[in-house]
Parts: sequence; structure tokens; C-alpha cells
Amino acid sequence: MSTSNQSFDRRRFLQFTSLAGAGLAASAPASRLFGQEVDSGKLNTGTIKCRGYAATDTSGKLSPWEFERRPVGEQDILIEIKYASICHSDIHTMKGDWGPQIYPQVPGHEIVGIVTAVGKNVTKFKVGDRAGVGCMVDSCMECGSCMHGEEHLCDKGATVFTYGTPDKSSPTGITQGGYSNHIVVRDHFAVHIPDHISLEEAAPLLCAGITTYSPLVNANFKIGDKIGVAGIGGLGHMAIKLAVSKGAEVYAFTTSPDKKDDILSFGAKEVVVVDDVAKLKPYKGRLDYMISTIPAQYDVAAYASVVKPFGFYTQVGMPVGFELTLSNLALSTTRVNFNASLIGGMPETQEVVHYCADNRVLPKIEIIKADQINDAWTKVLNKQARYRYVIDAKTF
Amino acid sequence: MSTSNQSFDRRRFLQFTSLAGAGLAASAPASRLFGQEVDSGKLNTGTIKCRGYAATDTSGKLSPWEFERRPVGEQDILIEIKYASICHSDIHTMKGDWGPQIYPQVPGHEIVGIVTAVGKNVTKFKVGDRAGVGCMVDSCMECGSCMHGEEHLCDKGATVFTYGTPDKSSPTGITQGGYSNHIVVRDHFAVHIPDHISLEEAAPLLCAGITTYSPLVNANFKIGDKIGVAGIGGLGHMAIKLAVSKGAEVYAFTTSPDKKDDILSFGAKEVVVVDDVAKLKPYKGRLDYMISTIPAQYDVAAYASVVKPFGFYTQVGMPVGFELTLSNLALSTTRVNFNASLIGGMPETQEVVHYCADNRVLPKIEIIKADQINDAWTKVLNKQARYRYVIDAKTF
Ligand SMILES: [Zn+2]
Ligand SMILES: [Zn+2]
Ligand SMILES: [Zn+2]
Ligand SMILES: [Zn+2]
Repeated sequence: MSTSNQSFDRRRFLQFTSLAGAGLAASAPASRLFGQEVDSGKLNTGTIKCRGYAATDTSGKLSPWEFERRPVGEQDILIEIKYASICHSDIHTMKGDWGPQIYPQVPGHEIVGIVTAVGKNVTKFKVGDRAGVGCMVDSCMECGSCMHGEEHLCDKGATVFTYGTPDKSSPTGITQGGYSNHIVVRDHFAVHIPDHISLEEAAPLLCAGITTYSPLVNANFKIGDKIGVAGIGGLGHMAIKLAVSKGAEVYAFTTSPDKKDDILSFGAKEVVVVDDVAKLKPYKGRLDYMISTIPAQYDVAAYASVVKPFGFYTQVGMPVGFELTLSNLALSTTRVNFNASLIGGMPETQEVVHYCADNRVLPKIEIIKADQINDAWTKVLNKQARYRYVIDAKTF
Repeated sequence: MSTSNQSFDRRRFLQFTSLAGAGLAASAPASRLFGQEVDSGKLNTGTIKCRGYAATDTSGKLSPWEFERRPVGEQDILIEIKYASICHSDIHTMKGDWGPQIYPQVPGHEIVGIVTAVGKNVTKFKVGDRAGVGCMVDSCMECGSCMHGEEHLCDKGATVFTYGTPDKSSPTGITQGGYSNHIVVRDHFAVHIPDHISLEEAAPLLCAGITTYSPLVNANFKIGDKIGVAGIGGLGHMAIKLAVSKGAEVYAFTTSPDKKDDILSFGAKEVVVVDDVAKLKPYKGRLDYMISTIPAQYDVAAYASVVKPFGFYTQVGMPVGFELTLSNLALSTTRVNFNASLIGGMPETQEVVHYCADNRVLPKIEIIKADQINDAWTKVLNKQARYRYVIDAKTF
């Protein structure tokens, strides 16, 4: 099978490059600062030819696209993508729900693969390493936030997101995401994927995992605390598993009654089917903390009311326009603190990958081929995903 | 002058009633459970004839109105209103901004006066006492919240607000507020006004005072902490004075440049004129806590960004429909906790009155006559109030 042969050829090449190692870096920088025509396996210093699926307009439909990425710079690594999973944010962004976009644009920010080349100054990775890329690919790296591992909150606003951010280094003018077969990324913005987790199960950790892990660990809850999770999709099911793993008693709030058995299998103590906000009433003031992954407008104060007075409620789902309308009066009667959380920094992203690998906190996934992406997106919008679609990148 | 004569006659009557005291309560209950035709000074057990200013529609205009209040019940007191001040909430409510209203309706929930009658079971007040009424006049008095002095958050939702709440005991079918010359209220929902504060300066404490005092004391800030106050009207100017009095370094955010000198005289360290949200940028992450009294939609996340990460931001101003739309993305980058606060319970309302009297934390007021109310409302809406209009109730 040609795919296997390609892999074999690449592996031999990788071994060579890997053996060359750091020693070569000083004496022969040119040999590590290169671009690669990956399909043919030849070295060069040029751009990286890629295949992927791109949006060309706000229709929410993707189609195959060939494009180029920047050459592998001194501090970059090249990753042969093995899997990329589908996040609701991909759909929101491509449809223009969060602002006008430049097209064609390749979405995808849950990316895992194998390092196939490294720039001359890279020490974090070597060729052959398993690596993952999440929601960002660069930042200023100098400000207080960047220096403290919060690159997603760069004080200079210089965070470069994985797709759609204007980027002079990119041949297409914007960053292009992970629904493709290769990606070039500054080494700092990739994480190591340990051997004891499959690449396909690691992929969703890069966004769904970190986005829920970060607020959960920052909530400092205690073993036995009652934690609510609202919205049980890709993010929500990870939130349940992570909270259960950290000793919480988890209450899951969903609008999909047919998810009940799954949710109990994730370790939740109770599933509340919220077909009417009145279903929340019996839980008023009972939970210690709650996280909402609902990526749309909803009755925030009604959901927040299940948290004890002066407790905290974190919104990680991002609705259209990022806009959330809440009743200030209703919120005042709950006395719950509302906050929002955006992914997490690189050290914490690495942490969640290790944590999930070590503790077997794994997403429930369904592997699809590239030509199933449009169908999968429709299912995500219809709440039919169970619970993360993972694209096999060799089908691009 | 006839007003003086009436006062004298009433005073003689009050002394008699007061002397009668508790001893009479058991032997002659009928003599204490009575209504009073106040205008003529005669006793009876009927309804209380009142004059006031009422809204008859959503126009935001009031007109003189004669109406009746319920007879003074066993647990009620009758207060001859001396002053009632104007709160932005009065305007919002009458215009239907917070939901449809029943008309005619008398607004006003910053009410002070003299007790002129007490029901037979009343021990908290005696005739002649100075008393104040704020935003509520009854609740279930049995639930956990009511038993813990949080009657405004009654678990049974049985809080009766001072005006506009359907109320079987009221001859008009709804509670009627303080823009009038008398009010009947359950004793628990009136507070004592100590002698060392004028009645006219005490009036605004019943809403503007408690609404800002409650979140400020619950914020548990330390002396020297940097506290922000956004929106410097009736509530905001009290928030500044209260925070300064409690040792904070206060940063005031206003859209009215001509308020600057006043604001500095209230003790603020700095005044930021926010004619553009960009003016907030230099303060990013610098404040320990912030309170917003802005009673309209505004860029919540931009204002919240001046609070340090993981700090708290409290919204007390209530916009149209109570609806506040915020950018979940922008809020996530601040990591500030957003919460809302609604007035305060009766013990805390009594506390703020004592605190302000003892510490000379007094509102800046302008006394007006009843026929100036409509003009004053227009000025409130145009941000021309400096800073609380207080209606002299003898002009009703
Ligand atoms: Zn995502
Ligand atoms: Zn930075
Ligand atoms: Zn008020
Ligand atoms: Zn109650």
C-alpha cells in the first residue's frame, strides 16, 4: 500500500534527521533549516505543499483544497498530521458567526501527528516525536502573560490563532488550521503527546480538553464537591470525565434525553434533561461550581441558579458574536459569580495531555474520513455528535 | 400656616398614642388597630387617604393622584412621609422598561417620615419615631432567606416591592410607592432613622445607599485597595463616598466631564472620563474591585478589564429588561468575575443608615417640590441630576 511505503520512506528519513540531532545544528544549520516537499520526500527550503478541506464562504460547507504553508523556520517544526478533530468553534468561525473571515480557510485546532522536520534552533522536538497543536500557533513571547505561560492572553494582543489570523509568513495570508495533512508551527506552540495515549484520542484534548481542564483546575474544588456541567457535547463530555477523575460528584445538564446512558457511563452522578428551565429549580443553590459549554445564547441566570450563593459559574462555550445576554436581576438573586474562560496556555495544555494520558481520561470519539466532514458538521449542529468526530488525515 | 397647625395637632395626638404604649395593646386592641383619616386627624379603622404623584401610562410622566392605602394592620405602621427621593429605577419601572405595569402607579422607594400610628402588635416603632422605607414592604418571613435577613431574596419569591407588586391588601390592587404623603407598611420593613442625620439626607440611603453599601461590604476590600465605580449618578456618588469612607482608593468612571470637580470632592482619587472605551485601557488589570451603577446596556467586558485578573466586578445598575449583553470572549481575557447585586436585606438597610449617620456619609441632594418631579425625571435621564432629587412630601 502506497501509504505504508511512504511512511517507511519517511521513517528512514526521520531516523537520519533525528540522529543528526543537535550536534549538526551549529555546524550545518542549512541542513535543518529547510522546507520539505513532503509528498515526494525531497528536502528543500521552500513552502510546504498541503492538502486539506477549506471553507470558501459562510455556507458552513467545506471542500478539498490544495495550499501552501510557510517554509520551516529556525524555530519551527513540521508536523505530518495524523488526526484532526472537529470543534464547534470551527463551524462558528467558518460561518462568520464570530466576525468576517478570509477565505479559503482551513479550520481545525485539535491536531496531532508526527514531527517530520525541525528548524535549526529547535530543541523541544526532534523528528519522529508525537506532537499536538491546539488553538494557537504564536504570540509575542515577551509580555508578562506570555512569559507566564498564558500565551492565549498575550498582553500585546499578539496571539496568533491556529486558523484565520492574518499572518505575513503564510503564503495564503492567514493561518490555516488542522483539517489538512501537514502543519508548520513554532515549536513552543506544539505539545508532546506521550506514548500511552493514542493519537486519535489525544486530538480532542488540544481544545475540548484544555478548555474544560483549565477552569476546572482553577476552580480549586475539593473531592466530593458537586460540580455541574451544562451542554454535553465534545467539551461537556470531557468536562464530566475530568471532574469525575478529580473526585467531583458531577451533575450533567443536557437538552438531549438520549445522551443519558452515555453521560452516566462517563461517571456523572445525575443527568438532568433540561427541556424546560423549570427543570433546574430543584437544584437551586445545590452545586459548588458549574461549567457551561453551551455555544449559543441561553438563560444564563437560570442555569447559574443551581450554584450555591457566592459560588462560581464558568462559561466556556462561545455563542454567535461571542455575545451572551443575561438577566442582571435574575443573576443578582443567585449571587453567583459569572466568569468566562478561553482555552488555556501552553504549559497547561501540555499538562492536560499528560493528565489525560496518565489517568485514562479519554474522549469518546468517532473516526471519519475527509469526505464525511460536511456531514459531521451537520450532525454537530444537530447535537448528534457522540462526542467528537476525529478526521483521519490520511484521507485528505 | 395651616401646615404648622396640622403638625401641632398631629403631634398632640401622637404623644397621646405614644403614651398609650404597649400597655394598651392587650386591653384595648381596637384603639391601636386602626386606620386614620390623616387629613382631618380623626381616628377610624378604615383606609388611609393619600395624595401623591402617579404614572398612568408608559409615557414617563406623572400627575397628581388621590388614592387610598390599606388600613393600618396589627403589624403595620403608618408613616407620614416627609421626603421621598427619585431613583432611576422609578423611571425604568413606570416606563415599562422592566415589564408591563398596572396604572395608576405611584413610584418611590426612598422614603422617610414620622410614624403617626402603629398596629397593636407593633413593638419596633412608636408614634413619633423617625422611620424609613426602601424597596420592599413585605415577604414571607418564614423561609431561610427571610429568616436570615435577606427578605429581598425570599426563597418563596414572596418579596413585595414597594410599588407595582400585586397586593390584595391594597385598595388599588398593587403596592403604591413613596411619591405621596403617607404610607402603611409592615413594621419589619421600616428602619429607624437616627436623630443625627436629616430626614432629607437619609432618604437616598434607602435605595442608593443600601444598593451600593451591600456589595461594597461584601467585597471585603482592604484599606488602600483600589476600587472602581462606574456611572456616577445617585448610586455612583454614594458608592464613591462609601468606599472612600471605608478606606479605599477610589477610581471613578463617568461619561460626564462636568462631574469631575464634584467627584473629586466626594473623595475619589482619580476621575476617568470614558468618552471612548479606549480610555479604559491604561487602567487594565489595576483595580482590586469595581462596582457599576450604569443602568443601561454598555460594554461590560471593557469596563471589567480594569479589574485585576480573578477580581470581582459587581453590576447594580439595572438596564432595560434587566438585560445585559456581554462579550464572553472579552470577559474570558480579563478573567474577572462578574456578579450582580440587588439592594440588600432589612438588617443591612438599617446598618447602612446607621453607618452613614455615624460617619457623615451623606448624599448630595437637591430638594424639589412635587410639581417639579417630571422636570427632575427628564434631568435624571439626561444625566443632569446632581446627584439625588428629594421631593418635599408636604408639596403633594
Ligand atoms: Zn475548539
Ligand atoms: Zn505576549
Ligand atoms: Zn432605587
Ligand atoms: Zn421568604
